[in-house]
Amino acid sequence: MTQTTTLTIEALHQRVETIFRKSGLNDIQAGALARVIVAGERDACKSHGIYRIEGALRTVKAGKVNPLAEPELVQQPASAIVKVDAKGGFANPAFELGVSALAERARTCGLAALVINDCTHFSALWPEVEAVTERGLAALVMCPSYATVAPSGGTKPLLGTNPFAFGWPRSGSSPYVFDFATSVAARGEIELHRRAGKSLPEGWAIDADGKPTTEPEAALAGAMLPFGGHKGSAISTMIELLAGIMIGDMTSPEVLDYLGTTTLAPRHGELILAFSPQAFAAGRDGDPFARAETLFEAIAGQGARLPSQRRYAARAVSTDKGVTLTADEMKQLDRLEELGLDAIA
Amino acid sequence: MTQTTTLTIEALHQRVETIFRKSGLNDIQAGALARVIVAGERDACKSHGIYRIEGALRTVKAGKVNPLAEPELVQQPASAIVKVDAKGGFANPAFELGVSALAERARTCGLAALVINDCTHFSALWPEVEAVTERGLAALVMCPSYATVAPSGGTKPLLGTNPFAFGWPRSGSSPYVFDFATSVAARGEIELHRRAGKSLPEGWAIDADGKPTTEPEAALAGAMLPFGGHKGSAISTMIELLAGIMIGDMTSPEVLDYLGTTTLAPRHGELILAFSPQAFAAGRDGDPFARAETLFEAIAGQGARLPSQRRYAARAVSTDKGVTLTADEMKQLDRLEELGLDAIA
Repeated sequence: MTQTTTLTIEALHQRVETIFRKSGLNDIQAGALARVIVAGERDACKSHGIYRIEGALRTVKAGKVNPLAEPELVQQPASAIVKVDAKGGFANPAFELGVSALAERARTCGLAALVINDCTHFSALWPEVEAVTERGLAALVMCPSYATVAPSGGTKPLLGTNPFAFGWPRSGSSPYVFDFATSVAARGEIELHRRAGKSLPEGWAIDADGKPTTEPEAALAGAMLPFGGHKGSAISTMIELLAGIMIGDMTSPEVLDYLGTTTLAPRHGELILAFSPQAFAAGRDGDPFARAETLFEAIAGQGARLPSQRRYAARAVSTDKGVTLTADEMKQLDRLEELGLDAIA
Repeated sequence: MTQTTTLTIEALHQRVETIFRKSGLNDIQAGALARVIVAGERDACKSHGIYRIEGALRTVKAGKVNPLAEPELVQQPASAIVKVDAKGGFANPAFELGVSALAERARTCGLAALVINDCTHFSALWPEVEAVTERGLAALVMCPSYATVAPSGGTKPLLGTNPFAFGWPRSGSSPYVFDFATSVAARGEIELHRRAGKSLPEGWAIDADGKPTTEPEAALAGAMLPFGGHKGSAISTMIELLAGIMIGDMTSPEVLDYLGTTTLAPRHGELILAFSPQAFAAGRDGDPFARAETLFEAIAGQGARLPSQRRYAARAVSTDKGVTLTADEMKQLDRLEELGLDAIA
């Protein structure tokens, strides 16, 4: 049997936060990064858990993110747009700074937008979606990435894997939340196939000549494909427009030019929309939250799974029993805590 | 050679509007319906052109839409939500009534929503998207339909074909617009396969037992599938939540219960979001409209097609040379004009 260590969520948070502090991040950055990474580990989202610490630190070491950034909130009266200038730091503390103002604006105006500019982004979007749904609001969140996906009918990487996430608040149970890449597969999945020496399913990627391929190496040298053909490609393009260009931040091709690599966390902006179901439904028959439950029951009642249920099940276990890490994972945490940025190649 | 007749867009509009007036629609309803139907015919979108007149009239004759409705605008100060009560009439005149207020709110607040309640909906969403982009704003439009699509992993019709449409304004050329069903295929395409005695492509539908089928009859008795697997299913569910439940209007299963058939135009609500790129980009480097052109050039430059280009090409021809109808189509227009609702079985 492999040796494992079980930590409480709080204990894991302390360890991760300490690593970031020792690597030179200020309190605001270190705390927010630890929260989102521990949330991933807690929900058994291993691809967004402690595995991400190294990538974040690599980006710090490369000088592409400011570890001392203090995000700044910018609000204009009468506007439903709340802006946070991340000042070149990570997106997460900028989001934490802006979310209450976003919620206040959405309650007053019915809907509102939080724009995060000049941030480095490496986390899943669902923690942010959940922070909005916790405030009784629906959320729609999107951001670009770097150019690794060809538009439908195209031959070269141009779009990002551009995640698209949505949430609806539920009282008494975890929110309805989805959060997915607009590429067929995540880039990490292609990397996993490569390491395992396995072919890719058809429809995931094209090679450098724009021809369909099932070879991971050829795919990594070529481009991934958007999900759902021209429809997913159109949604991904919409994300470049709304969450890149409209907010005055970089598009996926511009991010790749800026970084010159996909091994660092991308720098761009992020768009978070919040909707007040109470404001929208005012004066109409029926309680929107109760009616949503009827819809969810009808979906689950025919054997279809609501999104995020696996995450919530893992969260229940972690909250109750703690998070279990392997000996290798513990060793890596020790190493990162001891060496900080010096642990990064 | 088949005999055809070519009419100017204006002449076709007059004919269609006259048909609706003779069928008992008031000026507001008849004018708006004629505009959207002629736009479809003009753009060679035959499925949303004069073919739709009969379905609209059938819904009038069935008493499921109010041909004399006078939509009413409801605005609240400080809110970014503009509501139009369609009063049981068609969605199109309600949209026309609300779009200027939506644009004004979006310019002031940065983003705004137009909610249309209690309307009958039978048209494509792109005419509304274009009406928003003409005002220099980006648009995101969605509405439910009736329950004909199974959620991913499910076995029974529950979701609608729920269209999702987006637009970005371009100066000097037609806007970037997409407008698609969140089902793999439109229900009409399955009907066309049935009439032609052809099998369906795999992945379009399941039969009444929830098993995959390529038989059109079995598909029509079963359920269509969402595009892009669980991702499209999630987006379709989001549309039920935002553009059905949140706005206090019917979901797709409720619509089907209300109508009891899919042969009439569905009654529900509609959600139109408008974004001001100028407000969002204020204070940031670069002009968002110029930057978007760079993105569009990169897409088209690698041989990928921007959406709606076929429509715009057809529009250019129609605007220049008029709209050409077959002898059968002309005969049908004559018949509808002469008989009004009596032409409807």
